[in-house]
Amino acid sequence: MTDRLEDFQKIREDLNEEILACGHLGIKRFFALDHQAYELGALGTKTKELLGLVASGVLRCDDCITYHLVRSAEEGWNRNEVIDALNVVLIVGGSITIPHVRRAFARMREIEGLKPSSNAG
Amino acid sequence: MTDRLEDFQKIREDLNEEILACGHLGIKRFFALDHQAYELGALGTKTKELLGLVASGVLRCDDCITYHLVRSAEEGWNRNEVIDALNVVLIVGGSITIPHVRRAFARMREIEGLKPSSNAG
Amino acid sequence: MTDRLEDFQKIREDLNEEILACGHLGIKRFFALDHQAYELGALGTKTKELLGLVASGVLRCDDCITYHLVRSAEEGWNRNEVIDALNVVLIVGGSITIPHVRRAFARMREIEGLKPSSNAG
Amino acid sequence: MTDRLEDFQKIREDLNEEILACGHLGIKRFFALDHQAYELGALGTKTKELLGLVASGVLRCDDCITYHLVRSAEEGWNRNEVIDALNVVLIVGGSITIPHVRRAFARMREIEGLKPSSNAG
Amino acid sequence: MTDRLEDFQKIREDLNEEILACGHLGIKRFFALDHQAYELGALGTKTKELLGLVASGVLRCDDCITYHLVRSAEEGWNRNEVIDALNVVLIVGGSITIPHVRRAFARMREIEGLKPSSNAG
Amino acid sequence: MTDRLEDFQKIREDLNEEILACGHLGIKRFFALDHQAYELGALGTKTKELLGLVASGVLRCDDCITYHLVRSAEEGWNRNEVIDALNVVLIVGGSITIPHVRRAFARMREIEGLKPSSNAG
Repeated sequence: MTDRLEDFQKIREDLNEEILACGHLGIKRFFALDHQAYELGALGTKTKELLGLVASGVLRCDDCITYHLVRSAEEGWNRNEVIDALNVVLIVGGSITIPHVRRAFARMREIEGLKPSSNAG
Repeated sequence: MTDRLEDFQKIREDLNEEILACGHLGIKRFFALDHQAYELGALGTKTKELLGLVASGVLRCDDCITYHLVRSAEEGWNRNEVIDALNVVLIVGGSITIPHVRRAFARMREIEGLKPSSNAG
Repeated sequence: MTDRLEDFQKIREDLNEEILACGHLGIKRFFALDHQAYELGALGTKTKELLGLVASGVLRCDDCITYHLVRSAEEGWNRNEVIDALNVVLIVGGSITIPHVRRAFARMREIEGLKPSSNAG
Repeated sequence: MTDRLEDFQKIREDLNEEILACGHLGIKRFFALDHQAYELGALGTKTKELLGLVASGVLRCDDCITYHLVRSAEEGWNRNEVIDALNVVLIVGGSITIPHVRRAFARMREIEGLKPSSNAG
Repeated sequence: MTDRLEDFQKIREDLNEEILACGHLGIKRFFALDHQAYELGALGTKTKELLGLVASGVLRCDDCITYHLVRSAEEGWNRNEVIDALNVVLIVGGSITIPHVRRAFARMREIEGLKPSSNAG
Repeated sequence: MTDRLEDFQKIREDLNEEILACGHLGIKRFFALDHQAYELGALGTKTKELLGLVASGVLRCDDCITYHLVRSAEEGWNRNEVIDALNVVLIVGGSITIPHVRRAFARMREIEGLKPSSNAG
């Protein structure tokens, strides 16, 4: 994982734009539904982002983990809370998730609020 | 899914007992770690149960979903909140999770606090 | 798999109804999108049903396989064509899909157009 | 899992027969390759059965686990060795495999050489 | 995904050659069976390639998706048809497949017949 | 997979260190349990490494495969035996594992005892 967060986000945005402009209504609607799933409902946005992070973790999708790490920090989860969620990933998903947890730790180095020193008292 | 919650829980407990008594220290320790993953840490128990439910949902494990539905109700999540979490399962995991979401709805009929009428105002 | 197709369909319909009536707009919309994904688009409905069958097969979801077997027969695929699609499932997904392929063969006994004698010349 | 081993084996054999008689050469060849994968090669049959068991465990296929438990016992693996292999399943695959490990323990009660008392000195 | 299609294909061919020359008959036979699964049978080659694409998509294998995109174009599927198949991937597999769908769109830029302007009237 | 084994190992070690120093007791304990799962028990360490390799293969985790290839060579498994285990991966997991088997072959070029000429008599 030598790509920087910034590069990941640029490529992601660029391709999302191409996909949304491709003219397929079903895909467009699914992207909208995906977005809405994390908006305020019976559950709050903050809780939902952590659900998204754990779902991405156990399904072992690095790009999805990166996305939800960034959003989780924006919603106010701190480093220790995110690490506690990654422990749930590890226990539910087993050692096969370790490489993804490793990359999550590497990614957190780039995210304000989740950096290694973030919870240092 | 014709088994009743009560039967599921009896078989589960019975087999867990046999496993824990089998003499394998690694398995015993993993079961303990699994239990501790949902105890109060940087995150609270209530939040963690919902993480467990969503992880179980996207990984499509009916028994795990049943277990976390029961625990989520005990922790105070109501029917609408659980359904909002199941929507995250559906969006992240896709239509392949629908049969499991269906069985989750069937199971909720048996769980105090998650029954169909639970959120009726 | 001792359940009869008829029973499966009744339980499925009953629970789908409960889910659609639960009041969660996101879930309702996803169910609609799921339905629309198999309607005529750039690809025809007949082709799409076979895509759904193979996707269900490699993801190892018996209920989904049953649903798409029924729909594939309705769209006019015959037994030998469905079996050829199940071979793709087997090759892509490996021997871990064999129990699901076995249950697919058992289910085909109940589906007009896919029964064992269907392609007998 | 209320089905007895005997019933499982009868249904399995019956459906395998139907599949092999269906006239699809590719499926027939894959079944043969699957069989040969566990025959003596650079690795011995005994080792390979345990590989099959662990692969089935982490991929969470109860029928496959049952099949390889029976074969592992026939090849001479004892209860404690099989349990040690199930621990690898648990650690690699995480708590999501626990229901399958539970059912593996239930199944071992029916298999000569793997029954609870088998390693009692 | 900074690798170009050409590079992917060279590395793929090079390693396939090494594997086929390694002397393991089972692997050699499986590669042959894999090849044959997409040849004319009860289903035509064109249909089968799309089945392979969707199977690769829901199982989230970028290399497999690339391979079947190239083959699908060769068989005559156009950009809009392939996008309609990717929508099935998205609906069945959920948002966890989005990064793979993104990479599929990136890859299509390199494939004659699937490029962004391909269906422009 | 352009990264060299040496680079992979350095990054892995570096991140493991950060994870173990992060202060989460549950994660620390899981890493210890993971380590212990491959130590001498009812099964020997040599056998267990091959179980780990096959589990990693069918779950399609390149980093895990690399780790267990290195350890399998250290435990004395030779190239032909490892290839025979990879055949089990291929048969159980299907063609979707081929890209990972390819990368396993590429990785073996860097591992003493598993290099292409290793079994040349």
